[in-house]
Amino acid sequence: MTQVFNFSAGPAMMPQAVLEQAQKELLNWQGLGTSVMEVSHRGKPFMELITQAEQDFRTLYHIPNNYKILFLQGGARGQFAAIPMNLIGEKGKALYLNSGHWSATAAKEARSFCEVDEVQILEQGDVLKIGNLDFSDVAENYDYVHYCPNETISGVEIFEVPKVGNAVLVADMSSNILSREIDINQFGIIYAGAQKNLGPAGITIVIIREDLIGKARKETPSIWNYETQAKNDSMINTPPTFAWYLCSLVFKHLLATGGVPATETRNQAKAKLLYEYLDHSTFYRNTVAKANRSLMNVTFTTGNDELNAKFVAEATAYGLQALKGHKVLGGMRASIYNAMPIQGVEALITFMQKFECENA
Amino acid sequence: MTQVFNFSAGPAMMPQAVLEQAQKELLNWQGLGTSVMEVSHRGKPFMELITQAEQDFRTLYHIPNNYKILFLQGGARGQFAAIPMNLIGEKGKALYLNSGHWSATAAKEARSFCEVDEVQILEQGDVLKIGNLDFSDVAENYDYVHYCPNETISGVEIFEVPKVGNAVLVADMSSNILSREIDINQFGIIYAGAQKNLGPAGITIVIIREDLIGKARKETPSIWNYETQAKNDSMINTPPTFAWYLCSLVFKHLLATGGVPATETRNQAKAKLLYEYLDHSTFYRNTVAKANRSLMNVTFTTGNDELNAKFVAEATAYGLQALKGHKVLGGMRASIYNAMPIQGVEALITFMQKFECENA
Repeated sequence: MTQVFNFSAGPAMMPQAVLEQAQKELLNWQGLGTSVMEVSHRGKPFMELITQAEQDFRTLYHIPNNYKILFLQGGARGQFAAIPMNLIGEKGKALYLNSGHWSATAAKEARSFCEVDEVQILEQGDVLKIGNLDFSDVAENYDYVHYCPNETISGVEIFEVPKVGNAVLVADMSSNILSREIDINQFGIIYAGAQKNLGPAGITIVIIREDLIGKARKETPSIWNYETQAKNDSMINTPPTFAWYLCSLVFKHLLATGGVPATETRNQAKAKLLYEYLDHSTFYRNTVAKANRSLMNVTFTTGNDELNAKFVAEATAYGLQALKGHKVLGGMRASIYNAMPIQGVEALITFMQKFECENA
Repeated sequence: MTQVFNFSAGPAMMPQAVLEQAQKELLNWQGLGTSVMEVSHRGKPFMELITQAEQDFRTLYHIPNNYKILFLQGGARGQFAAIPMNLIGEKGKALYLNSGHWSATAAKEARSFCEVDEVQILEQGDVLKIGNLDFSDVAENYDYVHYCPNETISGVEIFEVPKVGNAVLVADMSSNILSREIDINQFGIIYAGAQKNLGPAGITIVIIREDLIGKARKETPSIWNYETQAKNDSMINTPPTFAWYLCSLVFKHLLATGGVPATETRNQAKAKLLYEYLDHSTFYRNTVAKANRSLMNVTFTTGNDELNAKFVAEATAYGLQALKGHKVLGGMRASIYNAMPIQGVEALITFMQKFECENA
């Protein structure tokens, strides 16, 4: 079989080394004679796994001791509901920064649980660009301010952290967690579905500052009550053990390959290569402002729907998978998360050149 | 390595053939050159997988066409919250039948969302026995009646279906789904976490009669809104794709090995062997009434905590894993779900005889 590169936006490709290890020990984990997915989550071997996984994740992302790390179920969309349930208090409302599809979806879900004010931060125009991010004058009126630093559909990333004064900042980092260095102290909560940079679909990480724990309303399902889960090692019910195990392998893999700094360097190199190619092309174009171009999701189009469809079909046959853009936007999208090697981007550019020659 | 048998109550053992297939194709599913956990849930290959999985499950369990099947996240405990959110209507309250730890936990969670009346159905006494199950005179006062037909901790199973007249009967079948034939038409909702008889932890199946869909309160997280999920192929958000895939393999495996009738025959044979041995023993004892002895979880004790601990330690060394009883009850518990071969029960009895000889 030809080498295949998978540009899926999520569930996305996993590190090859992680899958190979999982395959090798799938029927016999740690010499126990059983699969890791068959052992009790409360048994010593699995408890050791989660302790090490938390330590590795803390090390990788420089997570201070006054933050708890929870491993939950329900995806980021589950957290869209869990966050207002856990954080809405005396102010009774939250501020949502709208930068595109996912931040808007989070705001919509929150409206079932609290009053929501929504601010458009994506400037209107031909080029997708994030505007003013200083909310320090109004943020104190809200129990929290929510934003999504990487919009996977449009390929818009917000590199500057919004200014919210002393208010609680909540970030949905599903699509850019562990992709570059950040200062955790600027956030009250960071959460992420695993299926882009952390592991397989089915597990959700919540990094939460300790003082935000313990405020959940009565009508909070216990599996999403941060206090209950923090007190119970994220095991108030049976956790998705195999997904947790795969995350633990991803953490080890990232530590062994230089941690987040080296990952960020690789991500910058991949994105630079692809955006520079797009900027020099007259056949393809990307419509995101340079300051907000995602390191994770690179969108592009030929400007012609038929040609885009042909591109996607021929790319798939060439071994470059899942390049079709999200239905909301059309065109193409190359998701180049942590696990995508630069060889994948090089192969994509080679194909793009070939396709341009044949179709320009 | 000696042959190992894993009696874990959940996450529990999976069919060997399923794990072997998963291992074989872990890095290259359907010749795509990627893992099944790396492909888009909305892509054609995965959509075909879920269509077939639903069909296979429907065939296996004889699920009528007026029932929808949802594949969700959050475990049975998530459903403890989701059920009142989705079902409580004009009557404003639910009846919970308490037969032990899990049914009581479901009732406790429901109290955060609605008024709950709770009835003790486990008779008090030296022998664990289920009492009267006729609630047809009071059931109409409730939006639904909830029970748990198999209590994993005590090993109490309820074979008779409670009488509830025209009221909606909801059953947590996490630990006995697909273990024996049932008449789906007697239930409004059947739900089950996967990690005992269906697949790995991290996916939850809900079988729901269509007329019960569409009653969710506003404050229902969208991932648990039955109407939203039913309209979106259980994909309102990214589902736990690898867990779903493994469930699909388990369904195929069950169909290939005689379906639920043959599974039930095997389960009856395994349980009969173990209970008959216990009944003839003066060294071990089981305290569940014969009419309520679980086919899935067989509890027993020597009556001496030290001896029990010694039993568990020596059994583990012998290759018989996870026989320690739940901390609530102590003693031993052999979980013999669908995937446990009769050889596992035979090996357990051989060890029990040996241990009795050495310690009686």
